[in-house]
Amino acid sequence: MNIPAALLETLHATFGHDACSTGEAERLAYAYDNSRRNALPDAVVFAREHAQVETLVQACREHRVPLTARGRGTNTTGATVPVEGGVVVSFERMNRILRIDPDNRFAIVEPGVLNGDLQRALAPLGFFWPPDPTSSPWCSIGGNLACNSAGPRTVKYGSPRENTLGLRAVAGTGEGFRCGTYTTKGATGYDFTRLLIGSEGTLALITEATLKLTPKPSGLRTLRATYRDVSSAAHAVARIMAQPVTPCALEFIDDTALKLARDHAGDSVPLAGAMLMIEVDGEAETLPSAVEAVSRAARGDGLETLHVAQTAEETQALWSARKALSPAQRTISPNKINEDVVVPVSHLPELVNGIRALSQKHDVLIVTFGHAGNGNLHVNLLPRNDAERERAHACLAEVFALVISLQGTLSGEHGIGLVKREFMPLALPPSTLGLMRNVKAAFDPDGILNPGKLLP
Amino acid sequence: MNIPAALLETLHATFGHDACSTGEAERLAYAYDNSRRNALPDAVVFAREHAQVETLVQACREHRVPLTARGRGTNTTGATVPVEGGVVVSFERMNRILRIDPDNRFAIVEPGVLNGDLQRALAPLGFFWPPDPTSSPWCSIGGNLACNSAGPRTVKYGSPRENTLGLRAVAGTGEGFRCGTYTTKGATGYDFTRLLIGSEGTLALITEATLKLTPKPSGLRTLRATYRDVSSAAHAVARIMAQPVTPCALEFIDDTALKLARDHAGDSVPLAGAMLMIEVDGEAETLPSAVEAVSRAARGDGLETLHVAQTAEETQALWSARKALSPAQRTISPNKINEDVVVPVSHLPELVNGIRALSQKHDVLIVTFGHAGNGNLHVNLLPRNDAERERAHACLAEVFALVISLQGTLSGEHGIGLVKREFMPLALPPSTLGLMRNVKAAFDPDGILNPGKLLP
Repeated sequence: MNIPAALLETLHATFGHDACSTGEAERLAYAYDNSRRNALPDAVVFAREHAQVETLVQACREHRVPLTARGRGTNTTGATVPVEGGVVVSFERMNRILRIDPDNRFAIVEPGVLNGDLQRALAPLGFFWPPDPTSSPWCSIGGNLACNSAGPRTVKYGSPRENTLGLRAVAGTGEGFRCGTYTTKGATGYDFTRLLIGSEGTLALITEATLKLTPKPSGLRTLRATYRDVSSAAHAVARIMAQPVTPCALEFIDDTALKLARDHAGDSVPLAGAMLMIEVDGEAETLPSAVEAVSRAARGDGLETLHVAQTAEETQALWSARKALSPAQRTISPNKINEDVVVPVSHLPELVNGIRALSQKHDVLIVTFGHAGNGNLHVNLLPRNDAERERAHACLAEVFALVISLQGTLSGEHGIGLVKREFMPLALPPSTLGLMRNVKAAFDPDGILNPGKLLP
Repeated sequence: MNIPAALLETLHATFGHDACSTGEAERLAYAYDNSRRNALPDAVVFAREHAQVETLVQACREHRVPLTARGRGTNTTGATVPVEGGVVVSFERMNRILRIDPDNRFAIVEPGVLNGDLQRALAPLGFFWPPDPTSSPWCSIGGNLACNSAGPRTVKYGSPRENTLGLRAVAGTGEGFRCGTYTTKGATGYDFTRLLIGSEGTLALITEATLKLTPKPSGLRTLRATYRDVSSAAHAVARIMAQPVTPCALEFIDDTALKLARDHAGDSVPLAGAMLMIEVDGEAETLPSAVEAVSRAARGDGLETLHVAQTAEETQALWSARKALSPAQRTISPNKINEDVVVPVSHLPELVNGIRALSQKHDVLIVTFGHAGNGNLHVNLLPRNDAERERAHACLAEVFALVISLQGTLSGEHGIGLVKREFMPLALPPSTLGLMRNVKAAFDPDGILNPGKLLP
């Protein structure tokens, strides 16, 4: 599509020439995200203020031009790829931390603040914001909210939906609005805060967020448990989550992923049938009993080694191995299919065994690891050529069917975006999807916000 | 209004004669709730199954007849009073606990299950469901969800919005649907679960809920701190919430409320300028340090006594006094105005001082107590005659204006219902209210569900 001249004029007047571009270079740079899908936008603008975003949405609506919001493009689902062209609005320059209020345990931020920058600003005050995607040094809070992105700590501290008090935003109607509270409790009308979180920029564009902060516990212990096979590790996860001491991370890594991590991070990574990384946090004097409680649950059929990290370096080495997994897979398969299915934890053994069987049936390499404490596994299919790629797609459909049969759902923390929307009817009944379309129309009557995403 | 004969026929056919009534006695019994407002419905039906509720909503929609859902009517806002007549559907007979799954930390319940009955069923398994309104022995889970009702434990464990995984419901369109997950994490489409929670039966009728369970800590300690005046107690609350050990209850009781409680519960209740009840929970070995941390924060200017309860009986006596407060006030003022405003905790001193000034200015008795850890205070105006009642209403408007000026909101846990909807424009901008009306229309295009509530 070509952008109408009148709209382009409004964009230039609103954003200025250094924050509005139709140049080839900018259009290419904002055509793709970490899904490796891409589609060229017709223009890219860089917002700095709420008022600009109101003008932008109103103008795009007037001209019926698609508008796709973007944080840092670290999502893996194509949620920020402008598949119908139009305007991409990047929030990377709208990145001020407006206020940190430790007494009331909240921070007010603009959407372009990086997750890692916020954590660094909070640390000296003794607080953190729980969502911690692996990409935290480079991903924006706005993107975290759009996708309900989580991370290892979610098992104890919750996702963005549990850690956000209020929002300022601009609906697809072009109206600015505020929702939520500055308090930790509220029963004043519909909960639009949670509705916008995870809506992937299809309802409204978030211009400010009031985040709930959590005091950082002073102590942390990291355990490493290796198991004979994936099934016995999955059973251990279910046992750990059935006892009262909730770990602040409970990560599962299968044998294939361990080999990959070892190639990447060296022989501090053990070879085993599967590994769990378990972290517990709290005030120092509470840690020995917490370690004891999770250790008791980790023991059982198939346990081979159970080791408590003794030094900060040792802990760091364990996490490096875990964090190396995503890039390591790209070396095998640049077009890896990166899923994050989730099932109730007691069904994890059936899930990992079922995935193993599907991997054999379709002859596709699958690496499985992730946030097992939430039942949330990254199931990564690694096709190495076109034939394998075709088999991988057939396999993927069966993986999703397996997950749904185990009372699970398509995504725990990545969202739906472009790549999973065809599978939505597997997860949600037609009535729910119909109501979601009604709600989409309530916020965005002309369908200009991020078209082609989330809803099939 | 009179119910159309065809609708009545459908109701009889759907519910049977023992669960469908147009008799005077039933209509009277379902005309009011704990707000003491009342309005007669034209018919009352008692649901037992999801399919009945679908038929009911479809039939009411076809005939454009208002439909008001009801749990046990313990709400204080008139949320279940059928102000436009029509049909009341009571969920009190749809009260089965369908499944308790400790391994996956969830329970599936019908909406009529009483909060207290659920807690009793969970206790032997070592779990609880955090929301605990004072009315827990008599209030239903469906009502808790409709109003986002909370209670003292919310300060540590969150409200229904933080403790519900998924729902089954029937929208105002007449369509049944499911939303949410059976997992503790999900990023598959819009968050309808939280949207329905707190929507007071205006969007959809909940027929099943999957509740997130929390392991019950094995230990609990209760502290009582008395202060010279309300202001110094309010400052202590802000200090307690600014340090890392979050209490599982932090209740504030002002001097007037203490006198009332003492009249009711005897002289185990101290006389003081104000009192805090502080509870910490956790595994037994963690309690001494937790008690020490909150005690340190409780100390400061104006502290008069600080006492750790030594026995279960002593703890029980403290809570009896706190729980006696609501009924005790009815003896002074049958028409008490029962608010539950909320402000950021650091603004509590300004709030309690401001309320005190307004009480004097308008010459109306105001009792203040509540869940101070969330900044959530029950501000109860106790007019004793018509003249005082008039002054109380003028005073109330100023209380709300004060709350909003302190970045607070109208309701922390009671909701809006009938009695506060005229004040909604104080709390929310016209754009937010407009979008709420759009969302209402998306779920309930003919406006049959609980008309006259929540939105002004």
